[in-house]
Amino acid sequence: MIQVETIQELRSIVKRWKRENKTVGFVPTMGYLHEGHRSLMETAKKETDHVIVSIFVNPLQFGPNEDYEKYPRNLQHDFQLAASVSADVLFTPTVSEMYPVPIQTSVEVKGITDVMCGASRPGHFSGVATVVTKLFQITQADRAYFGQKDFQQVAVIKTMVRDLNIPIEIIPCPIVRESDGLALSSRNVYLSSEERQQALSLNKSLQLAQRMAGAGERDASTIRAAVLKQIQEQPLARIDYVEIRDPETFQSLTALTGTGLLALAVRFGNTRLIDNCLLEAPPL
Amino acid sequence: MIQVETIQELRSIVKRWKRENKTVGFVPTMGYLHEGHRSLMETAKKETDHVIVSIFVNPLQFGPNEDYEKYPRNLQHDFQLAASVSADVLFTPTVSEMYPVPIQTSVEVKGITDVMCGASRPGHFSGVATVVTKLFQITQADRAYFGQKDFQQVAVIKTMVRDLNIPIEIIPCPIVRESDGLALSSRNVYLSSEERQQALSLNKSLQLAQRMAGAGERDASTIRAAVLKQIQEQPLARIDYVEIRDPETFQSLTALTGTGLLALAVRFGNTRLIDNCLLEAPPL
Repeated sequence: MIQVETIQELRSIVKRWKRENKTVGFVPTMGYLHEGHRSLMETAKKETDHVIVSIFVNPLQFGPNEDYEKYPRNLQHDFQLAASVSADVLFTPTVSEMYPVPIQTSVEVKGITDVMCGASRPGHFSGVATVVTKLFQITQADRAYFGQKDFQQVAVIKTMVRDLNIPIEIIPCPIVRESDGLALSSRNVYLSSEERQQALSLNKSLQLAQRMAGAGERDASTIRAAVLKQIQEQPLARIDYVEIRDPETFQSLTALTGTGLLALAVRFGNTRLIDNCLLEAPPL
Repeated sequence: MIQVETIQELRSIVKRWKRENKTVGFVPTMGYLHEGHRSLMETAKKETDHVIVSIFVNPLQFGPNEDYEKYPRNLQHDFQLAASVSADVLFTPTVSEMYPVPIQTSVEVKGITDVMCGASRPGHFSGVATVVTKLFQITQADRAYFGQKDFQQVAVIKTMVRDLNIPIEIIPCPIVRESDGLALSSRNVYLSSEERQQALSLNKSLQLAQRMAGAGERDASTIRAAVLKQIQEQPLARIDYVEIRDPETFQSLTALTGTGLLALAVRFGNTRLIDNCLLEAPPL
């Protein structure tokens, strides 16, 4: 695996691959890689001829009071992890390589960005859509791999790719969890042991909701109330949102008929965690 | 030359070209082709291996009270003109081919779109940037050709391509004029003979401004006043804007030091015409 820092060098590598008629898989990340990222890279490796992993903590998608400055970084560890799954290129552009002049252009996705993380983090999805468009143009990848933990992000990117006719296939991959159920996130490193223990309530409450739906509970507010109660029992938890929505349109659901998305964002101390699952109503 | 109506068919043609290591030139148009378009196609033909000409009257870039419905169309004539310069593909997608579902994504360019045509036509450049991004993704062209009559449009597209790292080169081409000086535009067909006669004042006023600048006049408001006077002498002219700006930043200029952009938009009846030229201050 080689590390590439410039757009120009990456383009020349990809050009060579394309001339050889090879397919390119792409795993965009903000680094501090974990087993969730590993599963994306492994899937990319299986499905494409060459794999590019990017590490770029994108200032555009952080709000003014968010954790851009202290977002965890560990390039040496990331290099080893990406090399261990035989990625071909680790692309690590600097901020000035990605934004050599103040950027005047943005990619905006309407509708599905008005709710959930879009409502909690104004400008976040604009920053994500813009940088992902840039990375797709730079890598010219055939397929890109994203974790379903960021369910809304995947929906935003799929919408953008469809609307702008970007010639890439978006592959959503399952959430990877610790053995005790905590969804993997680079931000988990921020948690104190007490916060981490209480954060297990997130996955537990998702499981509770799935059991309720499986047992035939179709009232979204009843399920939501049970989830809220379970999380609110943790003294350190501050709920940002807990919502049950249509997984395609992101319209709020009052009744579970087919598949619903249960998504939540909860703070423990200064750390904001997100998690989600699909709820399947059993046939009537 | 073949006519292609679907994105899928165009993609498969371009894929074949790329495998053969051929370069692709692209001339995006709204049809009703004239000699200005012909010059773009001829330049494209000289500089690239294969040329795609698109005809698409993009509803996204027209305001609610603009001329989308009555924009002139003549596919038979357009086919003949594009074939006469040996374009390879005439791409004529329908609106539902380009927008199969209501589009949720837009490409926004800030700063340079706040003035001139951006101020007169809210949403116009967003519609242009979005459809051009789509067309660039579909055609995967190496070079795209635009007329300088739409000076601000070219600047918007160059900014967008730079900011989003779209792998395409934007080639601005000179304005083509009738022998009496009227800048070619598909919208000229709307003009009555009286309006067309009075519209000659646009190019005449640009020439006057160039003579003033060449003679050492550096005060932008003096030059602008002379342009306004010449146009206002035409009883049918209603001025939308006449502005002298920096051709890169589009900041308003009070004094001409290096190169200035003189740009104007004027209505004759219901027809809005634009024109522009660069003003060069002689060395001090």
